[in-house]
Amino acid sequence: MYRSHNCGALNASNINTEVTLAGWVQKSRDKGFMIWVDLRDRYGITQLIFDESRTDKTVFELAKTLGREFVIQVKGNVIERESKNPNMPTGDIEILVTELTVLNEAITPPFTIEDETDGGEDIRMKYRYLDIRRNPVKNSLLFRHKVAQEVRNYLSAQDFCEVETPYLIKSTPEGARDFVVPSRMNPGQFYALPQSPQTFKQLLMVGGMDKYFQIVKCFRDEDLRADRQPEFTQIDCEMAFVEQEDILDTFEGLTRHLLKEIKGIEVDKFPRMTYDHAMKTYGNDKPDIRFGMEFGELNAVAQHKDFGVFNSAELVVGIAVPGGASYTRKEIDALIDWVKRPQVGASGMVYCKYEADGSLKSSVDKFYDQDDLKKWAEATGAKQGDILFVLSGPANKTRTQLSALRMEVATRLGLRKPDEFAPLWVVDFPLLEFDEESGRYHAMHHPFTSPKPEDMHLLATDPGKVRANAYDMVLNGNEIGGGSIRIHDKETQQLMFKHLGFTEEEAKNQFGFLMDAFQFGAPPHGGLAFGLDRLVAILGGQETIRDFIAFPKNNSGRDVMIDAPSLIDDKQLDELSIKLNLK
Amino acid sequence: MYRSHNCGALNASNINTEVTLAGWVQKSRDKGFMIWVDLRDRYGITQLIFDESRTDKTVFELAKTLGREFVIQVKGNVIERESKNPNMPTGDIEILVTELTVLNEAITPPFTIEDETDGGEDIRMKYRYLDIRRNPVKNSLLFRHKVAQEVRNYLSAQDFCEVETPYLIKSTPEGARDFVVPSRMNPGQFYALPQSPQTFKQLLMVGGMDKYFQIVKCFRDEDLRADRQPEFTQIDCEMAFVEQEDILDTFEGLTRHLLKEIKGIEVDKFPRMTYDHAMKTYGNDKPDIRFGMEFGELNAVAQHKDFGVFNSAELVVGIAVPGGASYTRKEIDALIDWVKRPQVGASGMVYCKYEADGSLKSSVDKFYDQDDLKKWAEATGAKQGDILFVLSGPANKTRTQLSALRMEVATRLGLRKPDEFAPLWVVDFPLLEFDEESGRYHAMHHPFTSPKPEDMHLLATDPGKVRANAYDMVLNGNEIGGGSIRIHDKETQQLMFKHLGFTEEEAKNQFGFLMDAFQFGAPPHGGLAFGLDRLVAILGGQETIRDFIAFPKNNSGRDVMIDAPSLIDDKQLDELSIKLNLK
Repeated sequence: MYRSHNCGALNASNINTEVTLAGWVQKSRDKGFMIWVDLRDRYGITQLIFDESRTDKTVFELAKTLGREFVIQVKGNVIERESKNPNMPTGDIEILVTELTVLNEAITPPFTIEDETDGGEDIRMKYRYLDIRRNPVKNSLLFRHKVAQEVRNYLSAQDFCEVETPYLIKSTPEGARDFVVPSRMNPGQFYALPQSPQTFKQLLMVGGMDKYFQIVKCFRDEDLRADRQPEFTQIDCEMAFVEQEDILDTFEGLTRHLLKEIKGIEVDKFPRMTYDHAMKTYGNDKPDIRFGMEFGELNAVAQHKDFGVFNSAELVVGIAVPGGASYTRKEIDALIDWVKRPQVGASGMVYCKYEADGSLKSSVDKFYDQDDLKKWAEATGAKQGDILFVLSGPANKTRTQLSALRMEVATRLGLRKPDEFAPLWVVDFPLLEFDEESGRYHAMHHPFTSPKPEDMHLLATDPGKVRANAYDMVLNGNEIGGGSIRIHDKETQQLMFKHLGFTEEEAKNQFGFLMDAFQFGAPPHGGLAFGLDRLVAILGGQETIRDFIAFPKNNSGRDVMIDAPSLIDDKQLDELSIKLNLK
Repeated sequence: MYRSHNCGALNASNINTEVTLAGWVQKSRDKGFMIWVDLRDRYGITQLIFDESRTDKTVFELAKTLGREFVIQVKGNVIERESKNPNMPTGDIEILVTELTVLNEAITPPFTIEDETDGGEDIRMKYRYLDIRRNPVKNSLLFRHKVAQEVRNYLSAQDFCEVETPYLIKSTPEGARDFVVPSRMNPGQFYALPQSPQTFKQLLMVGGMDKYFQIVKCFRDEDLRADRQPEFTQIDCEMAFVEQEDILDTFEGLTRHLLKEIKGIEVDKFPRMTYDHAMKTYGNDKPDIRFGMEFGELNAVAQHKDFGVFNSAELVVGIAVPGGASYTRKEIDALIDWVKRPQVGASGMVYCKYEADGSLKSSVDKFYDQDDLKKWAEATGAKQGDILFVLSGPANKTRTQLSALRMEVATRLGLRKPDEFAPLWVVDFPLLEFDEESGRYHAMHHPFTSPKPEDMHLLATDPGKVRANAYDMVLNGNEIGGGSIRIHDKETQQLMFKHLGFTEEEAKNQFGFLMDAFQFGAPPHGGLAFGLDRLVAILGGQETIRDFIAFPKNNSGRDVMIDAPSLIDDKQLDELSIKLNLK
């Protein structure tokens, strides 16, 4: 046995007991006649003391040689500390060491193993095993485990069965790009890694499994944007004999449970918002509703004056920023520059201060009098002391721009509080979206999503108008989960594939097994999937997912620690019946 | 809401309530004026009754059209059954149906959805979603979930943290063949799918994570023997600051917990047996100790007589089969034929009956008298009424043959009881085994396994003699888990790679990151991995793992349900910078 206690366990109640501890040297202070060492493990830090007058000479000399991150084992007595540290659970005691063994030496780490480290992102990733010794990363991984365990316990208690679906499956051209795996035993053929277990979970419903979930890795070979990973983890769920409402209830229940158990926060029943409403009110299908600043459309009150920019626009829309009337000219110009950045793309911005005295002062006073501007204030819900920001242009584009501004302003005002949680459901998504490039409709969610029955008749004539039984769970401006009621009959599924531009043969080739399955008695079913990486990060109050993943990849899809991907042997290639085709 | 109750929920206490049920038509009996339908879902079967005199005519007529596996929803009243079925939880009641909706029709399934089906393995795999509707498969999946959940709860309660390690890692030539994944973003380079998270879990120990586990898919591209899968699931575990004894205690605890919670069986402390002892006593490093028949070596008592076969053999070894003295000549000949099959490979077998009257009768009475044979009986522990079977030849081969015979005889005698559990630890495995083909040593466990400190000095001079700190957990003749204490210093690891025939450059190229990590303060650590598929099958009292895997692959690595692997587009190949190289 290497230790009797861990480094976070001992306190005043252990005084006068002999203990054995093991861990890493966090730091060492050598005062000549006295050496203090902070010994660290996963559970905490315990102070060791070597005292020239009380410690065996050999031990004392050895203690002088200890460097940072040495792995040591000590025996000693728990004694009361002279200068207590009330900020540490072990702060009342220290260990007067009688025996010391160096279990392993350490060369100097390339960055400090502290909560605030001097190491940049790249070096921390290369030496991720050292990064994991730091509290922020270690605690994120422990936190992730806790969340996953709560999910499993909650769903298991509700009769959900976790079923492992295969990782070596079939490539399908629909959706994102697949990672593929050449099959040695079937030359010329490839497996694909799952982008999600979508068809398998539907087949489990056909198989009567009824309530399924799985915490499972999924894979997408996409060009990586910041904070995306080629492999990511889903909480994948499906239920049979359910309507949309049953699913929303069940997974709202799960999320409330997590917020309560993990964060100690009780939330009310989640608001439900249609996609159309979310787009009109927040310019976004994943609105952050921790704060207001809802959109006010100004066409009726701002057009048909002499301001040509507004008159020619499809949409004039604004938000009222609370307390913004105190913004200086410089602050306003900075925000105007911000919306004009290529990432946002607005051509300009109109503002209007609603002063504390009730007067209104805008950047377009030439065209609008006080009465006009008062109507703007009404339409956006502005109060005295606020500032209005107004954008105009093509409707969709302008909404997206104003949404970006709304989030930016909220961030600057500190309204996006990491310890406040405002979940909601966004429902009634469009079934299809038109892709200009390919000139055809794509499934907005996926091709197995059921149209709303009342919109079914539009599928042949006006497919873009058809709404889906699809829903997203949104938390603090992030989509943390999404799903749909599925099509469960062969005819509708065939019709859907047709609208998505599949030939009959393509549909049969790719999804024949699913349509076959539908003939043998498929129950009504639906489900959803949560992105675990993001969910955990948000619950942990963080913006980025990377510290919640033990061994993440960089933006080129590389694991810089193990140096993967890498070259493989010609023999391997040959066995797999492939060769390189480099350009 | 599609249902107020599931099909296993209703009993006499629900009589006179109105309920809504949904499920599949298991079977239908039409007596003209009365129709009974067994409605099935995941939870059970409830009998529905349609009565011409009490049921609405339209509903009654519709009920006549119901075929097997139709998906229906019914409303009705719970009534007392006339002829009760005490074997079903719902056997006291039936539902007098008032409303009937056909949710989905079904064509006739290709095999019967019954506990004993008429469908063979191939057709059941092709329509696995129908197979899953059958109780034996469904219950196996539910059982697997329960086992996995118990594992997670037990380990979490002991401070183990489940950490997800990456699936897209680096290919290494050591061990089995890797599945590889071409990287589009890094042309010419490949990821590999993990054969196990071995190096990552060791890096987590270097990272201070201390107690790690993960229930995780692993991948090996091997020619498939019966009951092997290219993707399989491990319970992967690792601990830091531990010795072998700590690990054995911890995971013995886990296994005892599972046996108690899942099977209601309390087992004593697991016996520990050295590899040498297991090989000598059972001819096998995974002995089934539910029954005796331990090997008795007969060289001392059977050689130096006139029987040339024994005299020239390296080993003469026998087992005493309880009650075997009553075997007929025909039964004995059948067993002699059995050991001479090419799969076993013995050239012949000597037997000796120990009759109830104390006399001994052997097939080699020409060479041995009663006193000689009495010594055989003593050496094998035979009692009156038993039969001795004796094999001879090269030691290792003969032990393997006798082990096969021992298992076969035990199976025929019904001694391998599926509801009896006899776990043990096999310890002190050899570190290396010599491979005749490549003319070099291979790691018996893996190259990260620590030699026993007391054998360390033999590594340079007599590597085959070095024992490892490696251990297997054995249950009922199956290895269900195995692991080792790891090397945790760079020098020993380098020496080990050298003995395994790695050049310095190869070692650095493949495992440089691990050896680098060891320089920064690696703690002593070790762990093990359980094969979940096999563990679950054994706990479930089954011989084969296939029914405990939702969507297994066949012996050619194909998923015959979804028809994978399959061809992929030239465009996909091109993007991945590879082309086919078919011979």
